[in-house]
Parts: sequence; structure tokens; C-alpha cells
Amino acid sequence: MYNLLKGKKGIIFGALDPLSMAWKIAERAHEEGAIFTLSNTPVAIRFGELNELAKKCNAEIIPADATNLEELYTVFRRSLEIMDGKVDFVLHSIGMSLNVRKKITYDDLDYNYYAKTLDISAISFHKMLQVAYKLDAIKEWGSVVALSYIAAQRTLFRYNDMADAKAMLESIARSFGYIYGREKKVRINTISQSPTLTTAGKGVRGIDALIDFTERMSPLGNADADDLANYCITLFSDLTKKVTMQNLFHDGGFSNMGMSAKAMHVYNKSLENCEDCN
Amino acid sequence: MYNLLKGKKGIIFGALDPLSMAWKIAERAHEEGAIFTLSNTPVAIRFGELNELAKKCNAEIIPADATNLEELYTVFRRSLEIMDGKVDFVLHSIGMSLNVRKKITYDDLDYNYYAKTLDISAISFHKMLQVAYKLDAIKEWGSVVALSYIAAQRTLFRYNDMADAKAMLESIARSFGYIYGREKKVRINTISQSPTLTTAGKGVRGIDALIDFTERMSPLGNADADDLANYCITLFSDLTKKVTMQNLFHDGGFSNMGMSAKAMHVYNKSLENCEDCN
Amino acid sequence: MYNLLKGKKGIIFGALDPLSMAWKIAERAHEEGAIFTLSNTPVAIRFGELNELAKKCNAEIIPADATNLEELYTVFRRSLEIMDGKVDFVLHSIGMSLNVRKKITYDDLDYNYYAKTLDISAISFHKMLQVAYKLDAIKEWGSVVALSYIAAQRTLFRYNDMADAKAMLESIARSFGYIYGREKKVRINTISQSPTLTTAGKGVRGIDALIDFTERMSPLGNADADDLANYCITLFSDLTKKVTMQNLFHDGGFSNMGMSAKAMHVYNKSLENCEDCN
Amino acid sequence: MYNLLKGKKGIIFGALDPLSMAWKIAERAHEEGAIFTLSNTPVAIRFGELNELAKKCNAEIIPADATNLEELYTVFRRSLEIMDGKVDFVLHSIGMSLNVRKKITYDDLDYNYYAKTLDISAISFHKMLQVAYKLDAIKEWGSVVALSYIAAQRTLFRYNDMADAKAMLESIARSFGYIYGREKKVRINTISQSPTLTTAGKGVRGIDALIDFTERMSPLGNADADDLANYCITLFSDLTKKVTMQNLFHDGGFSNMGMSAKAMHVYNKSLENCEDCN
Repeated sequence: MYNLLKGKKGIIFGALDPLSMAWKIAERAHEEGAIFTLSNTPVAIRFGELNELAKKCNAEIIPADATNLEELYTVFRRSLEIMDGKVDFVLHSIGMSLNVRKKITYDDLDYNYYAKTLDISAISFHKMLQVAYKLDAIKEWGSVVALSYIAAQRTLFRYNDMADAKAMLESIARSFGYIYGREKKVRINTISQSPTLTTAGKGVRGIDALIDFTERMSPLGNADADDLANYCITLFSDLTKKVTMQNLFHDGGFSNMGMSAKAMHVYNKSLENCEDCN
Repeated sequence: MYNLLKGKKGIIFGALDPLSMAWKIAERAHEEGAIFTLSNTPVAIRFGELNELAKKCNAEIIPADATNLEELYTVFRRSLEIMDGKVDFVLHSIGMSLNVRKKITYDDLDYNYYAKTLDISAISFHKMLQVAYKLDAIKEWGSVVALSYIAAQRTLFRYNDMADAKAMLESIARSFGYIYGREKKVRINTISQSPTLTTAGKGVRGIDALIDFTERMSPLGNADADDLANYCITLFSDLTKKVTMQNLFHDGGFSNMGMSAKAMHVYNKSLENCEDCN
Repeated sequence: MYNLLKGKKGIIFGALDPLSMAWKIAERAHEEGAIFTLSNTPVAIRFGELNELAKKCNAEIIPADATNLEELYTVFRRSLEIMDGKVDFVLHSIGMSLNVRKKITYDDLDYNYYAKTLDISAISFHKMLQVAYKLDAIKEWGSVVALSYIAAQRTLFRYNDMADAKAMLESIARSFGYIYGREKKVRINTISQSPTLTTAGKGVRGIDALIDFTERMSPLGNADADDLANYCITLFSDLTKKVTMQNLFHDGGFSNMGMSAKAMHVYNKSLENCEDCN
Repeated sequence: MYNLLKGKKGIIFGALDPLSMAWKIAERAHEEGAIFTLSNTPVAIRFGELNELAKKCNAEIIPADATNLEELYTVFRRSLEIMDGKVDFVLHSIGMSLNVRKKITYDDLDYNYYAKTLDISAISFHKMLQVAYKLDAIKEWGSVVALSYIAAQRTLFRYNDMADAKAMLESIARSFGYIYGREKKVRINTISQSPTLTTAGKGVRGIDALIDFTERMSPLGNADADDLANYCITLFSDLTKKVTMQNLFHDGGFSNMGMSAKAMHVYNKSLENCEDCN
């Protein structure tokens, strides 16, 4: 609507279906004039609806396992080829924990799964950046964004080993943000988004209640995927060139709330009425 | 250039001359299609060059001491009148310490000056918000920004009682951000900007050396007033509706740096060569 | 019990009655071998039970309004006289908001009360430090502690202008901590304590429900005044000499929790049963 | 000297030689009346001087690779056997990066080494906690401490992938701190220590200059290993029972400094004199 990304080129990792955060971001980037490629795992492409998005945005899909260096090289090389030049932005929206999926609790972690959680949800970000860096694939003043969650700072029951992965993801944004900024003027940030009902998120037990709580705690309510897409556009645009190495809370205020009147109201009702709450 | 603020109305407090951060923000807001009023103290208007900016932006100047409630009421009432309706954004770029100006050190504060520092640099922000709130002067999803500095988190010698004022300013953004968000969907944030050579800043002893240090520490270099203006535009726009109660570092990465190679290089040279550095 | 403060001298501001945090700290300091003076306002001394504490700890009471420089000079001069030498530690446990007491909400602050809140709850800390500094009243490696609350970082409804005061208090600890550390090797920290039912706290509406919430959110439960006294002793001791300018959370883990199973359990019960919670 | 740990039992991981932080902590714990076992890798035991420490503290050495679950089980089982009951405290002082050692830069990481860095420096902490938890090896109100560094929050050139490992280590302290606190009242914290010249640290290029910088930045100077040992004792003692899930800066104030006069003095000298500093 504003042509904020007119002429900009990008790569978007992690869109699956219309509920995906990366999906909404891709749609908005398209609206704002960007061209880009899309990448996800072959399995995700098969079971998701990425083709529909690709069509809509006139984007090519490049399948890749983001934990595999060679496949990441392919994504970047092919993207530069297709779009005839370096990219301006990259989105990392990738995360998965088998410990969570299999309901293995944090005091009983399977360490192979734990390593996988880190590899998929955090190290893949480093690999992506290292590949881009070695190929010199991102333009000066380009912008890289990864999606994070407040569990990186504060423990939420059941979020499990994903908390450690997000803490590491944000650390990678800082560590690589320093080097990529110094050498190539590329900026790297994470957005710490409200809990969002994606297809992946839907599987998490108790997420509805958590979303109700954060909705009532946040003065502006939870940020949804549409809000996120808008915010992400500003970070890809030329208007935020000096923002780097930051973790940016996009959550209706939740991160700086201790207790809201609305959440306390619900909580109190329980204390009054609940028989097994003592 | 993008019409990001097309149709938006605002009030900009604190522009003095072309070096002012508020001045650059006003220029950019104008370019992006906003209309606004300008306010500063009568003294600042007399000695500054605000008329030039007003002309350029087709903006009316409303003189006011931002520590004076009545005068703030006047600014808001008159602004709503001139622009025929509620505003979408407000900028607070106001700060001053007589302790700093008179080179009174932090271990010898004059408490009358200290109270003035707080009143001018922090409480004025609360007054501004309270007046706006009582007049219901800001539209739903409106955006308020105040300019802060990292001294709110980390001590810098000579920044003196302004550090306490900035800490309080950021607290006000959170405290009022909760209420204003909950009741009126208005968002309130602070931007923590790189040290910037304004006319006010120029007076600070040793600021050149500090700016050299932060320039070398920041992977993207210091953010200047033009960068700030761009960033501020995104916060006034509709693309950041769910960002509130945040302190947003806009500093080329400085805030998350522990030590850079470039800054260490300079520091080391000293250790090798300096005779009175032990 | 450990003689951790054997031979140490101090000044404790803010004890009122046996529920006071400063009261418990004084008792523990006495047990650990410290001698000290006690100070509070004449009114507090008249209506509280400070004489009982003074007797028990063999401490002299020096009445003073901590916002009054002359009276603070008296407290420090008299303390050094009584104890025959500089002090090793100082406790600041002072806070009060007339806006809170009179149920004036944050969007309708009385600015005279606001100034008083800051003066009593934050600036008094600077005054205390400045007086001590000018009199050179604190020994090398001495320790100063002020009591704070997480409202300095995160907004809690009804905590009102005390949030801004606590943010400023913590900033003063940093700002003065730099100078006092550099010049005299004195360390200055704040402890951010769980909500605690003091006589003052009891007056706050809804504090019981908040305390229930934080109890269930904190893996170790809320820290109470006895816990605090123990913690404070470590900060006054010689074992923490290099800890300075810090805000130390003492809260059973609350500050780093996003959501606990126990708190969510109560919250959920409400959602299921509550008729006016939608 | 105070009998702060009288009757307490513990396990100390990571002492190598008298420069080790864990070595000093062991000595102080011994002085304060604790009994404990010592563990390190077989290689470290062979090349270090652990036997001397073991003799001095009357402690048994249990060799173990802390990344190996079975060996960790052995350490805990054997420790409980030797000391006839559950332990009160555990110290994790383990970290190593082959990327650092082999001077591989962060933009060129070897991913096998990266995985090893994480496994040794962070995941080992989870394994240790999970083993202890499963064996129910730590007493109620026991205390676990791991040593961290500010690189977890702020990027320092050359600290490389250890920054990510430390960020993850601190996240594990929070994540497990929640569960272990809730279920067993065990507290888990990290201490973020000043840069310290250990045998391992000595190998790091440029560490002398960094230590000079942090010394001048910190109002109380850097905390050394003796200071750390004292601080650690307070965290193992019964006086800090409600402190958990925290990262505690123990650094003479460095973490909350933006710029000190002393560091700026050195920096300025360079700017004046240095020929290749522009």
C-alpha cells in the first residue's frame, strides 16, 4: 500500500499455510512491492499450501532443510539467480521441538531431540547467515529478521526446550549482527511476537488459555499475524537502517506488564469460586 | 516519500533549530503527508529558528512551557481546533538539566535544579499525556513517542541527573502506556537514540570523544538525526500498532555491544603509548 | 548466627513496626553482630513501635525527615558520633505515595503529590548518599541497599506513581554507585523484593490477590521479610564486595517467569466458571 | 571464617589449577565448613593439579566427562555415597570452544565444533540438573550455581560462539530453575563474572587489553576469583534461599556502566596520539 519495499528482493523461510506468520509476512511484502523466493522443507511443502502462496506472490519455491548447509547454499544461489542480484531481506520463521511434540517434559529431555530443537530452531539461523555472508548475498543495509518469543527471557510452563532455543536464536542475532553490521552494513534483529495461533501452535496444550491470559494482560491485546506482517515490513524497509542486534517485543505491551486489572479480575473470580485452587 | 502519514495529524514538541532531532522528525513527517502543530517554550522560539520550520511544513507554532498544565491544555485544544479533530501522534523531545549546564556534579546536586530536571525532562511527559487523556485528544491507535538515551540503563560520566530523568521518562511511558492502551488503544514508546550532536548536545564537555567511541562500538555506526526521523515515522505509522510500552534502541547496535574490535584498537594504542594512563 | 556483621556499624532508615522489612533487617543485623542507629520520621516514631526495636537492638533512634538535608546531616553526624567512626552499611526502606493513598489514579495525578512521591521515595535516597558522601561517612567497601519493586520494570495496575519512583530509585543507585564506587569503594544496590504485607502494604487494595498470584507464579513462592533480612545481610557483609549498581531480584523466581502451571490452573478455573469474564 | 556452609555437602565441577574460579570456590567452601567432591575430565585431572586441591580440602575426585550422562550419574551417585546423603550445592564451571581455540571466526564456524561448544558449555548444565533431579540428589533449598559472562547479553569481539553458549546456559538456569524450584525447592542461578585470568582465559588473544578496559570501566574494578569465591559462598548459604532463576552480575559495576571517566581518559589519549586510528 505504501510501496515500502518497492524494488526490494528477499527470501522468506518458513511459510506453511495461511495461518503461518511467514505467510502473512510474504503477502504483505508482496503488497509493498517486494519480490522474493520462498523456502521450506520438502515435507512442509508437500503437506502445506505453499504453492498457493507462491502463485499469489509470483514467487519461486526452493525446497530446503534449513539445517543443511548445502541446501542453504542452493537457496541463496538460486535466489540470487532468479532475482538477478543480491537480496535486501531475509526472514527466518523456523522452530520445532520433538520434546514438545512428544510431550517429553523439560526434566526428562531426550538429548537427541534437544540437539535437534537447537539445530532446527536456532543453529539454522546461524547457518543461513553464514551462507549468506560467504556468498555475499545480502546488499548493504539489508535486513534480516528472525521470529522469537518471550520465553527467551521468562519461563513459561510447557514451552520446554524451545525457550533455550529462542534464547540462543536471539544471541545469534547479536553475535552475527555485530560482524555482519561491521563488515557489510547488514542489520539483524529478532521480533518477539505475542503467542500466535499457527497450525504448529494449535498443537500446544493449553495455548488457548495462555492466549486469553496474554490478551487480558496486554493493554493493546495480543499482536496477531497481520500486525506482525505490518511490523516486519517496517524492519525490511529503508526506514529502520540503524536498528540492529535488537530483540523487539511486538506484543501489545505484554512484555512490560506485571499485572493488569483485566487479568486480575479473571484470576480473582477463580480464587473466590474455585474449590481446588488452594 | 511513501505517504506513510497521509492524513495523519500530530503535535511535535521540542524542535529548536535544524540540528534538533524534533526538527528532522517534523520535516520527515511533513514529507510523509502529516500535518501537525509545533510547540516549544517562548524563549526557545525567540532564540531558535522554529518559524522557518513552521513555514516549510505549513505548521502553526503554539508556544508553551511543557511543565505548565494550562499551557499544555492550550497546545492540545488549539491543535485540535486548527486541525479539526483529534491527533494521531505526539512527539516529546524535551530535556534539560541545570546541574549539567552549570557543571554541578552528581555528588553535589542542587536539589532545586534536580527537581527542575525531572519536571522538564520527565514529568512534562506525564503532564502532556494526562492533558491529552483528559481532553481525549488522541485518536484510537494513535502513537506517542518520547526521546530517551541509554543513560537510563547504564551510567555515563557527566550525564549526571539526566540519567535519572530518562529512567523516569521511560517508566512514565510504561505506566501511562498501560492505561492509555487499555482505555483508548493509544500506544506510547520511547526511542533510545545514539548520542546526537544537537545544539544542546554540543555544549556537553567531551561529547565528541563519546561520539567517537560509540561510533566505533556500533557495528552500523551511530544513528544520526536523519536516521531517527525515518525510524520515528514508522512508529507514527499504522504499521506498528501493537508496539507499546517499549524502549526501542536506535543506535546502530551499541546497546548490545560489549566491546568491538574497532574501539579496542583505539584503546590499545593508548595503553601502548600513553604515559599517564597507568 | 554467623557473625557476618561482627564489628560493623550501620544506619537503618524506615523501620516502623514488626511487619516492616527494615525491622526484620535490623533484627538480623543485630543477630549478626552489627551495631547501628535507627531513623524514621517523628510521626512514624510516635505511631510505630520503633522504641521496642531500639531497645532490643541496643540502638539509638535519630528522628529525621529523609527529604530534609539538614536532618539527614544530623542522622549521619550523630551516628558517627555514637558509634565512634564511619559506618559500614546503610539501609533505605522508604516509600510513600499520596496519590496511592488517596486513590487518585495515574491518569489523574495530583502533581504536588507526584513530586512528594518522588521526593520521599527516590530523591531521599540521593540526599542520603550525597550527605554521606560529603561527610565521608561510609567506610571503604561499605554497602548501601535500598528496597525496590518490580514495578520499576513492569507495570502493575494500582501501583501508580510509585512505579516511576522505583525506576528513579534504581537509577540513583546506578548513578551514585558509579561515583561512590570510583571515589570511595562504596557499593550501592537495590533489592527488588516480592510483594510483602507490611503495615503500609496492607492498605493497598487488592494486594492479597496479587500476592496469591505472585506466590503461585514463583517457583519458590514469594520471599517474605525474613528471607529479605537474610539476603540483605549478605549484601552488607564482606562477601559481596564487588557487587554494585545492581538491582537484585529477591522474589522466588517471579521476575523471570512468564507463566507457571499453578497460576494458570487458577486462571483457567475462572475462565470455565466465571460469568462476567468474557 | 563464618561457618556459613557448616554441615553442607556439595559437588564442584571444573577446578583445574589454582587459577581456576572453581578452585578458589572450593577453597572457600572448605573454609566455610562444607564437604564436597570434585569432578573434572580425566584429561584435565591428568594435566591439572586437582589432586593438590583434593588433598587440601579432603575431597574425593570423581573423573567425568560432563557431557556424558552415565558419567554424570556416577558423579552424583558416588557423591551421595561418599557424603552419606543428598547434596546442598553444585557448582558448574565448565566451558570450552574449539572454534575459539582454533581461531575460527564467528562468520566461519565449524558446526561440529559449534555443537561441541554448546554441549560442553551449556547442555552439560542441563544434563547435570536432569541427572540430579532424577536421582533426587539435591536437598530441599539446595543451591546450584553456574558461571556465566556478560557476552550472553552483549557482543564482545573474539568471544565467538561462547556467547551463544552462555546465553543458552542462562536460559537453562531459568527453565530448570522453574521446575526444580516448584518441585524440590532447589534454586538455580548463574553468576556473570568479570573477565578473569584463568589458565584457559590466558590463551585468549587480547584478553589483557579487555581486562584493562573493564577494570577502568568498573567503579570497583574487576571482580577477581577470590571475590567470586566469596560471592558464591553466599549463594550456597541459607541466606539466599529465595533467589532463583537469576543471572547475577558480579563485576564491580561494569554491567551497568555506559562510559567511565577513567576508560574515556585512556581512549582519548589514543585519539590524540594515534596515527592509524581514524
